[in-house]
Amino acid sequence: MDEDTLIQRYFSFDADSPGLIQGPGDDAALLALPPEACAISTDLFLQGAHFDPGDDPADLGHKALAVNLSDLAAMGATPVCFTLGLVMPRIDEGWIAGFSEGVKGLAREYGVALAGGDLSRGELGVCITVIGTLEGDAPALRRDAAMVGDRIGVTGTVGDAALARLYPDRSGLESCRERLYRPQPRVEFGCAIRGHAHAAIDISDGVLKDLGRLLKVSGKGASVELTGIPLSEPVTEERTRSGDWFSVLGGGEDYELVFTAPESEWENIQGIGHRLGVPISSIGIVDGDDGLRLTEKGESVPLPSQLGYDHFGGA
Amino acid sequence: MDEDTLIQRYFSFDADSPGLIQGPGDDAALLALPPEACAISTDLFLQGAHFDPGDDPADLGHKALAVNLSDLAAMGATPVCFTLGLVMPRIDEGWIAGFSEGVKGLAREYGVALAGGDLSRGELGVCITVIGTLEGDAPALRRDAAMVGDRIGVTGTVGDAALARLYPDRSGLESCRERLYRPQPRVEFGCAIRGHAHAAIDISDGVLKDLGRLLKVSGKGASVELTGIPLSEPVTEERTRSGDWFSVLGGGEDYELVFTAPESEWENIQGIGHRLGVPISSIGIVDGDDGLRLTEKGESVPLPSQLGYDHFGGA
Repeated sequence: MDEDTLIQRYFSFDADSPGLIQGPGDDAALLALPPEACAISTDLFLQGAHFDPGDDPADLGHKALAVNLSDLAAMGATPVCFTLGLVMPRIDEGWIAGFSEGVKGLAREYGVALAGGDLSRGELGVCITVIGTLEGDAPALRRDAAMVGDRIGVTGTVGDAALARLYPDRSGLESCRERLYRPQPRVEFGCAIRGHAHAAIDISDGVLKDLGRLLKVSGKGASVELTGIPLSEPVTEERTRSGDWFSVLGGGEDYELVFTAPESEWENIQGIGHRLGVPISSIGIVDGDDGLRLTEKGESVPLPSQLGYDHFGGA
Repeated sequence: MDEDTLIQRYFSFDADSPGLIQGPGDDAALLALPPEACAISTDLFLQGAHFDPGDDPADLGHKALAVNLSDLAAMGATPVCFTLGLVMPRIDEGWIAGFSEGVKGLAREYGVALAGGDLSRGELGVCITVIGTLEGDAPALRRDAAMVGDRIGVTGTVGDAALARLYPDRSGLESCRERLYRPQPRVEFGCAIRGHAHAAIDISDGVLKDLGRLLKVSGKGASVELTGIPLSEPVTEERTRSGDWFSVLGGGEDYELVFTAPESEWENIQGIGHRLGVPISSIGIVDGDDGLRLTEKGESVPLPSQLGYDHFGGA
């Protein structure tokens, strides 16, 4: 099977997007985007760094797109289309069919169209670029827009994906494995809180590390109460058993959102969460002091030096 | 050096683009694109498949962006910004500095801004996505828009990059090596012939293979006179020496444009070429018959079964 046939068979998606005039097959795809601002983001998703050999191809297809949609969610942008760079060691039609189904399923769910892509031979990996639109006048949920006095909110629960990664064979972690392999980006919620929240970031490297990034670029600090961080039952059990907050909070890949919003908007945001079925927890307050400070039931807890995942392991 | 520092040091480009509101550093970049249609394209550029270990990092940076700008040129789109996915086996600051200089140099030349990206550890490779705009009312230079009676034009000369790849150590091929390692995308010319030409494709896999693709999706055929194909001196010498048209014409990576245009526009297009310093050659005529047919001084020449490069080698 040659490249053109492969593209025709597995990468001709029927997911329609009003923004896509002409999809794959030409030198470039053609888009008609609304006059409002657009958001664009790229993520690499590579065997070794981001997933393991033997992982289910449909899960990989889902997650490769999900992590990108999560970036748009963290800006409050509505996804329109994406491009797909796919590197494979060989043509394995079964693998490709599974991967394609995983991407397609999530693409259809959010009405996001495949605009184009490229295939090549090499170590298994994916590079997806997504484009979304920011309709209306409300500003994007930038990382650097946190204000002193903002309440810090987190969607859903965090640490589940990290727990699943720590204990691949432990029973009772099915829900955590679902979070690790099939993360659901908070697209509707991110779009809905734009205009209510000030700043947001998605949790890909751990809640504390990603919040730390947001605070740093905002030039603010914060005090976070660890017992306020929303944990699922399995993560709570693990935390109690190990006595360690950071083995799971230092892990990322939850693809929840951390956001900051003025107190006056907190009730509105809780209403949005309720309407969309997204639980919201308050974990702290932005202040003008330096950096991130942690407490456990009000008692100060030292911040670990390595809070989350770095793709080059620091140095 | 951690990932954030690396990005700050080597991937904070100052190339300004009027379309870029906010560049790298957030979950997504923000763009303000004109209300006209946009073009988007993605290309993989990988060690092994597209370049060799030890290739000059500045050349790689240049070429990784050039092949993407060439895709926009083939649509007649003006480049606005790009995203960069970069995979490296380790942090080698010397390599990164060279690569970054290569990308920056070409980005500045065309006023195209770095909108965002991602870094990870793995086998050396690059995935760039470019966005361009199609100002005005003239349609994009689609591949499928060739019309019966169109003249087929080629910019510059073809086969140079293939010759340099065939003979890496032969002297006298400096100009060919420059074409292979530092291709110059035909951005201004592609934009200028939109509204005059019907269809276009850039030559990445060989002039005959890429023209064949254009004809196939246009549902047309063509007769091409081999002696009309523009060859540089070194390629002419090699062709004469080997007696074989296809050793060099089957090679790609020239990043010239093949286009089709009505006879009535041919003089205009030659004028555009003259103004921009881009030589134009006429190599044949689009007709309604099936496929691509070759002649040499009017005598029919059989078409080789494998005309160019396939990233999975057919099967």
